[in-house]
Amino acid sequence: MKEYVIAILGATGAVGQRLITELAQSKIPVKKIKLLASKRSAGKKLKFKNQEIIVEETTPDSFNDVDLVLSSPGGAISKKFLPEAVKRGAVCVDNSSAFRMEEDVPLIIPGVNDAQLSHHHGIIANPNCSTIQMVAALYPIFKRWGISQIVVSTYQAVSGAGKAAWDEMLDQAKAHLNHQKATANILPTATDRKHYSLAFNLLPQIDVFEKDGYTHEEWKMIHETKKILFNDQNSNCIKVTATCVRVPVEIGHGETVYFIVKNKTATVQDIQEEIKQTPGLILQDDPQNQIYPQPLIAAGNRETFIGRIRADQENLGAFHMWVVADNLLRGAASNTVDIAKCLIRDHLVRVPK
Amino acid sequence: MKEYVIAILGATGAVGQRLITELAQSKIPVKKIKLLASKRSAGKKLKFKNQEIIVEETTPDSFNDVDLVLSSPGGAISKKFLPEAVKRGAVCVDNSSAFRMEEDVPLIIPGVNDAQLSHHHGIIANPNCSTIQMVAALYPIFKRWGISQIVVSTYQAVSGAGKAAWDEMLDQAKAHLNHQKATANILPTATDRKHYSLAFNLLPQIDVFEKDGYTHEEWKMIHETKKILFNDQNSNCIKVTATCVRVPVEIGHGETVYFIVKNKTATVQDIQEEIKQTPGLILQDDPQNQIYPQPLIAAGNRETFIGRIRADQENLGAFHMWVVADNLLRGAASNTVDIAKCLIRDHLVRVPK
Repeated sequence: MKEYVIAILGATGAVGQRLITELAQSKIPVKKIKLLASKRSAGKKLKFKNQEIIVEETTPDSFNDVDLVLSSPGGAISKKFLPEAVKRGAVCVDNSSAFRMEEDVPLIIPGVNDAQLSHHHGIIANPNCSTIQMVAALYPIFKRWGISQIVVSTYQAVSGAGKAAWDEMLDQAKAHLNHQKATANILPTATDRKHYSLAFNLLPQIDVFEKDGYTHEEWKMIHETKKILFNDQNSNCIKVTATCVRVPVEIGHGETVYFIVKNKTATVQDIQEEIKQTPGLILQDDPQNQIYPQPLIAAGNRETFIGRIRADQENLGAFHMWVVADNLLRGAASNTVDIAKCLIRDHLVRVPK
Repeated sequence: MKEYVIAILGATGAVGQRLITELAQSKIPVKKIKLLASKRSAGKKLKFKNQEIIVEETTPDSFNDVDLVLSSPGGAISKKFLPEAVKRGAVCVDNSSAFRMEEDVPLIIPGVNDAQLSHHHGIIANPNCSTIQMVAALYPIFKRWGISQIVVSTYQAVSGAGKAAWDEMLDQAKAHLNHQKATANILPTATDRKHYSLAFNLLPQIDVFEKDGYTHEEWKMIHETKKILFNDQNSNCIKVTATCVRVPVEIGHGETVYFIVKNKTATVQDIQEEIKQTPGLILQDDPQNQIYPQPLIAAGNRETFIGRIRADQENLGAFHMWVVADNLLRGAASNTVDIAKCLIRDHLVRVPK
């Protein structure tokens, strides 16, 4: 059985650390692992299985002899190094938004569109965390009845903004509970000018604003969903619109997803049944017993949790669902490692000439 | 000028205390104020303007000689005492859900439908907090262009569940930050069997579940909105659907409101202009300068804050907005006191024979 030299780029970040543990827990045969990060993090020691691995500073030559790169360093670093990795023959699965919308880059959710991996040119993109859990939850419904429209509102955990933002929110919470003024230097997003406290607050801004008033996060949910479902016969005219809100939760995005099916014969029971039978989805939908998805329960799990499925009483074919998943695992590290598994299964760990 | 004997029922609760301060800050001429609560709270002293008032236990005879009752004690107590108050000639404005859907009880948002006050039979209902801010924000749009459909997702603060739930969430947050197990005995709702931690979590249950899978809170938003707008010529076929989620915020509900106008000529700029010109609404909608409503900013204010107004790029006439208001003031005490002002203005502080 072939064994792989695997590099983890951005190994010290919130997602990077989960990439290490997800890879360790997978059955992917690892010949050698390289942990790559910025100069600042070089020299740190991290564990892979029982080995202690020293984090190295990333350079183009870090990728010599690497088969597979699992990448989560932020867009600018991905943009700089992944083409270098591909040049050296490494196949890259990237968590950043740097390549997602490029035409020759497959945007993959295993179980949904991993068939599209066969067309890769060296870089495969992991969708945005909020897109992954929504599309994963909707896909069995989409496949069976078609979906004409999606209106989603997100309740996104702070860990999606990175480790520094996460720490900042916890510090703000402590200050707030001690009746002190909370400071904000990062949230809602480090790359914008103004900063606000998130603890005990809601920030309707994730990423920066586009000219049309949508945030880039909302733009991602809309356009990534269309790209992921594009090759599917049912996707010709799927409409998607979104509002993304950051909430004071550590791990686990929530989403209220309102969707309209094309084939109006769908019922709540049918939809529940489809979800139950889909690997990776867990139905938690028993209102009479107060069973519904919650971030505190979903955190630490790889699955997508779905509940509160209800028909809109006044619009035939329109339904609500409440979707929760661990944004660092389901929305990032687990999806990336699942893509790697698909690449290995399909003999695609090679950069096409 | 006539002066009024005013009783505040449920005076020691989170809304009750705000009723006292809102009344004190209003220009309503108060001859005498009575603070009524349960036996347990009787004897407590609360301030009204500079007077110290002793809280009395509520009995039917507490309402003898009372002109006006401002009530926020919870549904069962309202149900028990308000008919007694009306029998004794007092006009009652009630915050509970006990009477809202009764045919002869006007459900009032001043500025929206206070014309309906003239038909009262002694009891006037204050709508649910999440309904008030949504309908207040939509009303100028509804009036000018008509609205055919509303899809709302709420992000509701814990104070809406009462003082005990509020304290519980703060205790849970402290425990969570100290890496201790948080206890839950009240949230999501004291009247249901299971209890979950809300701190750093999301609970997609507010109030109990109906048989159709909607929560009673969602039911309220749907049916109260229809009742409030029912007398308006444009409301014949307004469709409303909702998902209500409790979030770890102290004060200030957020709502993503997706709505479809009937007259498709409406633009984002037109809608912003209408909102700017409506008393009680504050437009905070400047994405390029990161100006948008936030609970921490809205708390302590009587207005409804509106931002993130955007057109759905794929559905003509469909728009998003993000609405935030102080649920204890705008969603409760201020609306109640505003109703009292309308009653006085319209000479309606009398129980019709």
